Amino acid sequence: MTERWRVRIEDAVRVDETRLRETVLTIFLKCGVPDEDAKQATDVLVTSDLRGVDSHGVSNALRGYVRGFRDGELNPAPQWKILRETPATANIDSDRGLGIVVGPKAMEIAIEKASKVGVGVVTIRNSRHLGMISYHPMMALEHDMIGMSMSSCPVNVNPTYGAEPRLGTNPIALAAPADKEVPFVFDASTSVVPANKLILSHRLGVKMLPGWVADENGIPIMEEIDAPAQRPDGIPDANMLPLGSTKDLGSHKGYGFMAIVDILGGILSGGGYGLVPGRPNFNHYVAAYDVEAFMDTAEFKRTMDEWLHMLRTTKPAPGHDRVVYAGLVEAETVEERKANGIPLHPEVVDWFRTACSDMEIPFNLA
Amino acid sequence: MTERWRVRIEDAVRVDETRLRETVLTIFLKCGVPDEDAKQATDVLVTSDLRGVDSHGVSNALRGYVRGFRDGELNPAPQWKILRETPATANIDSDRGLGIVVGPKAMEIAIEKASKVGVGVVTIRNSRHLGMISYHPMMALEHDMIGMSMSSCPVNVNPTYGAEPRLGTNPIALAAPADKEVPFVFDASTSVVPANKLILSHRLGVKMLPGWVADENGIPIMEEIDAPAQRPDGIPDANMLPLGSTKDLGSHKGYGFMAIVDILGGILSGGGYGLVPGRPNFNHYVAAYDVEAFMDTAEFKRTMDEWLHMLRTTKPAPGHDRVVYAGLVEAETVEERKANGIPLHPEVVDWFRTACSDMEIPFNLA
Repeated sequence: MTERWRVRIEDAVRVDETRLRETVLTIFLKCGVPDEDAKQATDVLVTSDLRGVDSHGVSNALRGYVRGFRDGELNPAPQWKILRETPATANIDSDRGLGIVVGPKAMEIAIEKASKVGVGVVTIRNSRHLGMISYHPMMALEHDMIGMSMSSCPVNVNPTYGAEPRLGTNPIALAAPADKEVPFVFDASTSVVPANKLILSHRLGVKMLPGWVADENGIPIMEEIDAPAQRPDGIPDANMLPLGSTKDLGSHKGYGFMAIVDILGGILSGGGYGLVPGRPNFNHYVAAYDVEAFMDTAEFKRTMDEWLHMLRTTKPAPGHDRVVYAGLVEAETVEERKANGIPLHPEVVDWFRTACSDMEIPFNLA
Repeated sequence: MTERWRVRIEDAVRVDETRLRETVLTIFLKCGVPDEDAKQATDVLVTSDLRGVDSHGVSNALRGYVRGFRDGELNPAPQWKILRETPATANIDSDRGLGIVVGPKAMEIAIEKASKVGVGVVTIRNSRHLGMISYHPMMALEHDMIGMSMSSCPVNVNPTYGAEPRLGTNPIALAAPADKEVPFVFDASTSVVPANKLILSHRLGVKMLPGWVADENGIPIMEEIDAPAQRPDGIPDANMLPLGSTKDLGSHKGYGFMAIVDILGGILSGGGYGLVPGRPNFNHYVAAYDVEAFMDTAEFKRTMDEWLHMLRTTKPAPGHDRVVYAGLVEAETVEERKANGIPLHPEVVDWFRTACSDMEIPFNLA
């Protein structure tokens, strides 16, 4: 079924990673993002594309960011600052800075704290889009730490039994190191699907699956229907459902995970929750756990190897080649795209051509 | 649909909370549990019953514990100890002690650490059943802290696309304080339903709902079928499914949350994961976050009030009286059961009568 949402590979233009990085970096610099921050933001975007998380890469995210810098919604050079701090925690005001710039700085602080006292937790208020949110926890891997992140988002999901949206798609990510196996990297919205899947369905003209959205009264729609258009604020005009879809299938659990993200990633940042009047922004949570604070790191990584190998060698159900774990397919995609280039839809290449022309940047992607 | 699993209220015997506590305490003492530990274990069980979490109260859990003490699987007087410690973390060996005894001690350590450095995280290896796992995070509430817990359980759930079980039902719980509103208390397995729901369905002779289990080849069963019997080890003889049921409905997300619990609650405890050969036990994770380490506590609780009020006053979908949040119904149930007694199935009262007779304890429940 997932084939339905895949851009046809023969339509795609393969773009070299290095060229893509150069172009994206130059666009950020032209938008007024300082040099180091622009490099950081570029790495988050291109890493998403390399991992096959196209929804959060250059195709969808970058043009929104450029628009945000232009209309003043995003601060290209935020004076972010630590508002409160303890040995294991910090709270940051992001000064309307992009999450893909301030998030990595917060993660560095969490890692530094974890290296000293075992765990570091940082909440971030007054921020903007965090990008592919697993980027931040993945920073912990090279330090032999476990990383975690959450992002409390604007509202478009109904609570269980609710007739109106009250929560965001509020994603959660966790990355944990292994020795020889590809590390575990989980990254998912707590709604059935991310909002982007509805946008993509509308763009491709394909139907949504049963259980993705509720009708205008809040009753889950358990059949295939057309995907909604986007509202002016970019959010799909639909009542999305929490993971689990219906109470009988456990939607109160998806709703619960969504609420946990609003508490730890939203309210505990001091920036409020999705439905606070006038809060069109994002708040975040990042954390690092130093494995050595709990146990021998080498033993942890050996056990992770054993466990990940066990998972990926699970006997598959009929019709499936194999069982995977979170992060495995993404790591394979990085290998393939580094070798063959990153596939971009021709419409995305056109956007780059126009944007480069507007900003008087040389265009050399195709 | 949930009416199907409710014990008919006219069948139930209402038992006074104080009498139930006395009887349960005496049973634990007779099993060799030291005085303070027996009081602690009793409080976890009766609190579950008061909150309406009957699956983890005296009806189901206690008889399993008594059997465990008898056959030596459970150590009634564990010499638990801290194996490793940093300012924000600790790792505990539970010495085959029940999670409902060692869990609260671990939570106290986490709270103490959080009060000093902002956050405290404790992993517990070589443990046994953690009971209603929200009991432990709820201990944080009176300290104006957020509490969290996870329990890595024996294996009975298939990963997405898998033909065989590889993970436990691995529950996650979080409790967060409010000012005037009932606090948020979430507690759920990361499978579609907890294993106990299958056991209950079998006992009541009612069918399971679509999406709860896979067939023997691993293909999700999307129609109503009879519930399975229990295997000798007490686990239902079925291939359970992760929250989300199928890939299209997001089962890879339920699988991901399940895996997170195996990492933080299992592997990071040093006790391994569910499918480690010869690991019929449980490992756990508890954490406390001091709100004041991140922001003004009074402001946090005011915002929690506003958010919880917003959630519970969401316009309901047709056919539903109201929208609730995690912990609200449970708090209402406590009020009702403190006033009217705890409803026990006559078969459970019979078990108490027999158990008290066997242990030469006075029986005064009915």
